[in-house]
Amino acid sequence: MTIDCDSAKSKNDMTKVSNKPDISNLDPSILDDVSIPIRKRMETYVKLLQRRLMDDVEAEENSNRFSNEPKQFLVETWTRKEGGEGISCVLQDGEVFEKGGINVSVVYGNLPPRAIRQMSADHNGLIDRVGYKIEGPGAEVDSLPFFATGISVVIHPKNPKSPTSHFNYRYFELMHPKTLKDGSPNPRYNEDEPVAWWFGGGADLTPMYLYPEDAKHFHAVLKAAADSQDVAFYPAWKKWCDSYFMITHRGESRGIGGVFFDDLSLPSWSNTKPTFIPLVDGSSHPQSQLVSTKQHDKESLFRAVRAMGDAFIPAYLPLVSKHKYDVFDDLNVEWQQLRRGRYAEFNLVYDRGTKFGLMTPGARIESILMSLPLKARWEYMDGTTGTGREHSAAAQLIDAEKKKQNPDSEMKAREEIQQVLENPVDWV
Amino acid sequence: MTIDCDSAKSKNDMTKVSNKPDISNLDPSILDDVSIPIRKRMETYVKLLQRRLMDDVEAEENSNRFSNEPKQFLVETWTRKEGGEGISCVLQDGEVFEKGGINVSVVYGNLPPRAIRQMSADHNGLIDRVGYKIEGPGAEVDSLPFFATGISVVIHPKNPKSPTSHFNYRYFELMHPKTLKDGSPNPRYNEDEPVAWWFGGGADLTPMYLYPEDAKHFHAVLKAAADSQDVAFYPAWKKWCDSYFMITHRGESRGIGGVFFDDLSLPSWSNTKPTFIPLVDGSSHPQSQLVSTKQHDKESLFRAVRAMGDAFIPAYLPLVSKHKYDVFDDLNVEWQQLRRGRYAEFNLVYDRGTKFGLMTPGARIESILMSLPLKARWEYMDGTTGTGREHSAAAQLIDAEKKKQNPDSEMKAREEIQQVLENPVDWV
Repeated sequence: MTIDCDSAKSKNDMTKVSNKPDISNLDPSILDDVSIPIRKRMETYVKLLQRRLMDDVEAEENSNRFSNEPKQFLVETWTRKEGGEGISCVLQDGEVFEKGGINVSVVYGNLPPRAIRQMSADHNGLIDRVGYKIEGPGAEVDSLPFFATGISVVIHPKNPKSPTSHFNYRYFELMHPKTLKDGSPNPRYNEDEPVAWWFGGGADLTPMYLYPEDAKHFHAVLKAAADSQDVAFYPAWKKWCDSYFMITHRGESRGIGGVFFDDLSLPSWSNTKPTFIPLVDGSSHPQSQLVSTKQHDKESLFRAVRAMGDAFIPAYLPLVSKHKYDVFDDLNVEWQQLRRGRYAEFNLVYDRGTKFGLMTPGARIESILMSLPLKARWEYMDGTTGTGREHSAAAQLIDAEKKKQNPDSEMKAREEIQQVLENPVDWV
Repeated sequence: MTIDCDSAKSKNDMTKVSNKPDISNLDPSILDDVSIPIRKRMETYVKLLQRRLMDDVEAEENSNRFSNEPKQFLVETWTRKEGGEGISCVLQDGEVFEKGGINVSVVYGNLPPRAIRQMSADHNGLIDRVGYKIEGPGAEVDSLPFFATGISVVIHPKNPKSPTSHFNYRYFELMHPKTLKDGSPNPRYNEDEPVAWWFGGGADLTPMYLYPEDAKHFHAVLKAAADSQDVAFYPAWKKWCDSYFMITHRGESRGIGGVFFDDLSLPSWSNTKPTFIPLVDGSSHPQSQLVSTKQHDKESLFRAVRAMGDAFIPAYLPLVSKHKYDVFDDLNVEWQQLRRGRYAEFNLVYDRGTKFGLMTPGARIESILMSLPLKARWEYMDGTTGTGREHSAAAQLIDAEKKKQNPDSEMKAREEIQQVLENPVDWV
């Protein structure tokens, strides 16, 4: 379930552009204040993280910029007619970053049964577990209020030796309506007690060339953050990540993984008392069932999500920094663009958030598709990634041609990363 | 339903590469011989058309080639373990053509109920109309034999002033099985009488810059071919084309249209006697219902499909020829790649043939995805095509920036084509 996909498309008033999102009204001290609802604290968290990441990305872009004028994010605040707002920040065509988007959103409104049913695919049996009859004759309600907030980031650096990365963390609530369909007060209404709530998200890395120490660094930082909360998290989330980002029709992964989870909640959603696990991911990913002996409550899960969000910058930005002035040539760029074609392919064909967003009327398409690379390339039967090339005589001809044009070192480097995309590795 | 999506992926023997497909065993005189089954004649037709188009494309590529060595198609013949074969021909990185693919295939085998049910989405109620009980207790058969043959072409020229074009014509049969599920002979079996058969296909043009006379030429040639068979064809197929190639989430079309149809058959499938129309397209496109007073039979529909196939070369290649030496600059290429990003977007998100192909186990992915451009580009909130830009302050900033970089003439030219993509035009 993506949460940054709604827009003011049908509104008449103009969105606002500013240099940096205003965070003067955000109070970091509330993050640990259990008296304040998590929805408010998550909103504050993602907005602060957005600003922190923007500052760090701009610093990386401008620290040694050749051009005198510093490059800044294009920042746009939009509102959603049906309820909510978002801040979309994109930096494009920089010297270090080719295209980077950092979006936050806070959206709310009412979900009709059709939308809740669609969510059941990701959140197993959701519609049957909400405890309201919302369809057919005798329905008590015709929709349920929802609230969602999150941050969504995709960064494509310019240097082909610098990896692309993506992360997204989000919080979702389905709430009790104040009144029932017939207009009578809802006896179950309780402002502080959602019908259902969960966290979702993850972070993953897409290098064009394999530097095993970079892959280890990225995974080690994420693992340390996860372990600090529960050692059961990383192994389950790492596996789920490998499974989620598979480009099935090519038999290769979008990148070298990271973490991915959804439906992170407690066994009994509406029970805010501390609950012993096993937590289950609640989805159709039995291989990713999360079993822990640690005692969790909603606060501990919120802390876990923040730990993962905080870990992104130290996990990723040092890798950009390390490679941003690496020497590269046209062959490296060609390969980078080919790998970015695969990235676009995954996002357009498989990514649930993208697909859901594109099908949502009034969605802010530009925010959803900021994940697509500035440049992409598709070669027929490419000598390294061509699907089915082991049985293709054409692939052999292309290989022979490529070998004439490309030095062995380039072909070897391409094959090294391809190998781990086709056979995901446990990096830590 | 795509028909060029199956491969020898799981076979052990190698495919064959040759300079040109061998057509010495094909007899053009059978095309009008009503004593020969249409499946055989359609196969012959698409293979001859493939060869003709290859010859013409190579001639266009090499007529004034700067480099001495002529550029040729990479030709690969593959076989499908489950039955059938195909010839995939791709010319890449030429001086006139950036990437062009011309595929034919002839595939057959058995379709399980799940596949027939999936086809019902395109071919209204198909599973209920086959006249066999194929699911549940008491099923007479557990699959139906099928046969499919067709040609599928996508050509992306190098010059940004030359338009991209696509066409595809195919013939499909569902057949009576020889025996029923219990092994007894099938009393309905008749080799010459399919359970169901239909033609599908179309041709469309995707210019990067609008030359109204080119659009008129392309449509006029297709219309003349359609009119020569039935004046009811073009108006219905043109409308269906505009509807099919819509990139819904952007509110713009992939190109300036052409013709598109599917499920072209007779009201009573298995009736080979001449039948009066109305033909209906049988799909959920009520706006494209084809109503004619002309008397059709299977032969007349086959002639119509051949007329459309024959029309492609004169409709399209003169436009490539006309613009192949037009002067262009980096801005033109940038715009070309952005439009090609949209092309990839349509094919990966919406195109039924592509989606069906990618989900088919054992599909020949390289043949399906040869339709993707060599190079593509996605800009955030692009000044001409950005979705929702009318309410976006960021779009205004980008517009102002673009205006500084780009001459007015370029911006005006981009807006001209964008205008007709958002508002499809009746060209003839």
